[in-house]
Amino acid sequence: MKASLRDRFQAMWTGLATIGASFSSSSGQPGGYYRFAWTAADLEMRRWFREEAEAIGLEVEQDRNGNLWAWWGPTRDIRPDSGGALVTGSHLDSVPGGGAFDGPLGIVSALLAIGEVKQRSVTPRRPVAVVDFADEEGARFGVACVGSRLLTGTLDPERARLLRDADGVTLETAMREAGADPAALGKDEERLASIGAFVELHIEQGRNLGPLGAPLGVATGIWPHGRWRCLFDGEANHAGTTWLADRHDPVLVFASVALAARRLAAELGGHATVGKVRVEPNATNAIAGSVTAWLDVRAPDEATVTHLVEALIAAAKPTGAEHGVGTSITEESFTPAVTFDGRLRDRVADVLGWAPELATAAGHDAGILAERVPAAMIFVRNPSGASHTPAESAELDDCLVGVRGLEAVLEELACGPPLGGAALSSADQGCRRGS
Amino acid sequence: MKASLRDRFQAMWTGLATIGASFSSSSGQPGGYYRFAWTAADLEMRRWFREEAEAIGLEVEQDRNGNLWAWWGPTRDIRPDSGGALVTGSHLDSVPGGGAFDGPLGIVSALLAIGEVKQRSVTPRRPVAVVDFADEEGARFGVACVGSRLLTGTLDPERARLLRDADGVTLETAMREAGADPAALGKDEERLASIGAFVELHIEQGRNLGPLGAPLGVATGIWPHGRWRCLFDGEANHAGTTWLADRHDPVLVFASVALAARRLAAELGGHATVGKVRVEPNATNAIAGSVTAWLDVRAPDEATVTHLVEALIAAAKPTGAEHGVGTSITEESFTPAVTFDGRLRDRVADVLGWAPELATAAGHDAGILAERVPAAMIFVRNPSGASHTPAESAELDDCLVGVRGLEAVLEELACGPPLGGAALSSADQGCRRGS
Repeated sequence: MKASLRDRFQAMWTGLATIGASFSSSSGQPGGYYRFAWTAADLEMRRWFREEAEAIGLEVEQDRNGNLWAWWGPTRDIRPDSGGALVTGSHLDSVPGGGAFDGPLGIVSALLAIGEVKQRSVTPRRPVAVVDFADEEGARFGVACVGSRLLTGTLDPERARLLRDADGVTLETAMREAGADPAALGKDEERLASIGAFVELHIEQGRNLGPLGAPLGVATGIWPHGRWRCLFDGEANHAGTTWLADRHDPVLVFASVALAARRLAAELGGHATVGKVRVEPNATNAIAGSVTAWLDVRAPDEATVTHLVEALIAAAKPTGAEHGVGTSITEESFTPAVTFDGRLRDRVADVLGWAPELATAAGHDAGILAERVPAAMIFVRNPSGASHTPAESAELDDCLVGVRGLEAVLEELACGPPLGGAALSSADQGCRRGS
Repeated sequence: MKASLRDRFQAMWTGLATIGASFSSSSGQPGGYYRFAWTAADLEMRRWFREEAEAIGLEVEQDRNGNLWAWWGPTRDIRPDSGGALVTGSHLDSVPGGGAFDGPLGIVSALLAIGEVKQRSVTPRRPVAVVDFADEEGARFGVACVGSRLLTGTLDPERARLLRDADGVTLETAMREAGADPAALGKDEERLASIGAFVELHIEQGRNLGPLGAPLGVATGIWPHGRWRCLFDGEANHAGTTWLADRHDPVLVFASVALAARRLAAELGGHATVGKVRVEPNATNAIAGSVTAWLDVRAPDEATVTHLVEALIAAAKPTGAEHGVGTSITEESFTPAVTFDGRLRDRVADVLGWAPELATAAGHDAGILAERVPAAMIFVRNPSGASHTPAESAELDDCLVGVRGLEAVLEELACGPPLGGAALSSADQGCRRGS
């Protein structure tokens, strides 16, 4: 007897549960997942993806930018009239101390949904793929959505190769040590041209679906957002013996800037967060020599993001000067506002039946791809709204509604009219089904 | 031909130059030394000490608390009328990114000075030792002067064994892995009773000797000082999607407290510093779950230290409550004001000739020992006053004046009247000298 979808979901989930998991609290870590790009945990996640995809008869390849693609159908033999391949998926990496759902829920749901469609002996009118995008969170090298940005050409491959992690290891070295070829990185026009549509299922970040009583939602767009690196360059000295007047303490300037960022966000109606800080040399009895802090800013429109950052830079300057501490706030990445393709969104919403439309302030590979191909996102209800924390959660029942919803969406998009927007004809109706 | 003292100083200095040194700047480290207790660098420093001490005929032993003692004379055979052993020395560990002089200058000077006295075939009236105290800076386990505090009983051995470094490794495990026996830790009355006096030579921290034109100074006392651990316990969440009103961001409460500490220090006439910060999970796109910050407070008197910390705790409470962030500020270590033994200080100052008297705001093993035995400190001029940074420096000529000064002090104390304070008699005059 074939296992139920519920059993298969739980089995897949269990297969991921221990990879990159931290159960240590003694060292001050809050638990959660540590699955950073090209680390051992990431490679284990990739191995898991390959095995699960092959188990349902998909053919797996790694593209030039480290993204994994699991193909159903004539892999690179896409007929001109097919409207391009239908791609679904998400990512398997995590933030430090991340939850189990952000990323993996989209991959697990995609594999299960395709498995369901396949076993009904449907022959899709176009190739279908599950993609695992590399380094979506940017936890290790500081730039988010590295895999999808390289694919679409919005991240320069030379800049990418030179990105460094906290230990000074470059992405180039990390990829090479993981058996990938960093020389091949870069825009992949041929692959982009072959994609007819991308649909990403993702756990909701925030708690909007709960009060609406909806297990699923559909994304309208993504707030513009960016990351800035704030460097405060002071002078290390003895904490006991250095007179206050002689100090150039970067911790104090950093503290002022962190408070100013929050104040400006409240005033201007955006979100500003400093969640990552590096203090050097980081000793109890030494005044710090430098502080590096990373600022995350998002707002409903780009003008507000720009205004917020410019006001912060203006506020930091006199504080730095007062302490004799050099301050610089420089953009590390910026993602403009995304509005998802309206026609694809309507098709997805039609298949799902009732699913509220939501904007999100979180970045996604779907947002990067949306610049080049029709893209859509399905959100699965998150009761507490917690995200980027081990407290992130979804009900199993909602996850299964998500798999069934994605399954219906994939079948419609695989068998329905071309994805590129050509007019519907009678020849476009449905897929061939056989025994 | 025997090498000059200058050559021998430089040779010894060169032997230490590369141990635990960081030349990397790519990872954001500011250079300097990383010689933390019981790490490979520390063990290399200890091996160096053993070899240099044995090269001048001293007998080296490691005591129950991990301190190294290099003995000249009848090691543990101290006659009741000798007034106890004469001990000099300092420490070989460093703060993160520390300078070359803080600690090692006292050890190098002690070994050279004893070598000078020995080669004149002086037979001291009492045993003489050079001590290398373990873990003076407390850079790894958060408590300073661990070796001397355990020796004198002001640090509980059970508490010491359970101290943890940033990776969660206990002092107990670290010692065992370094081949030492953590079960033996604890107050060492027998050893304390055998010490007649302790003299520590140390680089000046601050820049008071420069304007006085003096290469050497003598310490009057040490400001009371302590370390407090500040824990800000918030809630990790997504930096993009969490509304400002839903946030419990510990970085903001930490920032307020760091600024308040500086303001209170200026108001009350003390020093307060936050130089060490740990943010969890420390991700750009996650609101932090917790921040731990270490606060260093010093002032001319204990009442001011207490007042400053109490005012800070009072200021932190409403800020924490406003953000829904738990705050706790707890003492990790406290060292009361130290006034060095007046009689020993006068003897040291008499031998040195002209050496200005200075108070210092820096903690030292000599300050810990001063509770139980007469202790004194000699400072060597530091032109810039920089300390706990690679910019720390002393002129070679001043270092050599320090060695010669220490040599004269050691000979007088080794050959003069008993150290414990008994009255001078004619029998106490001088040492036997002969070839």
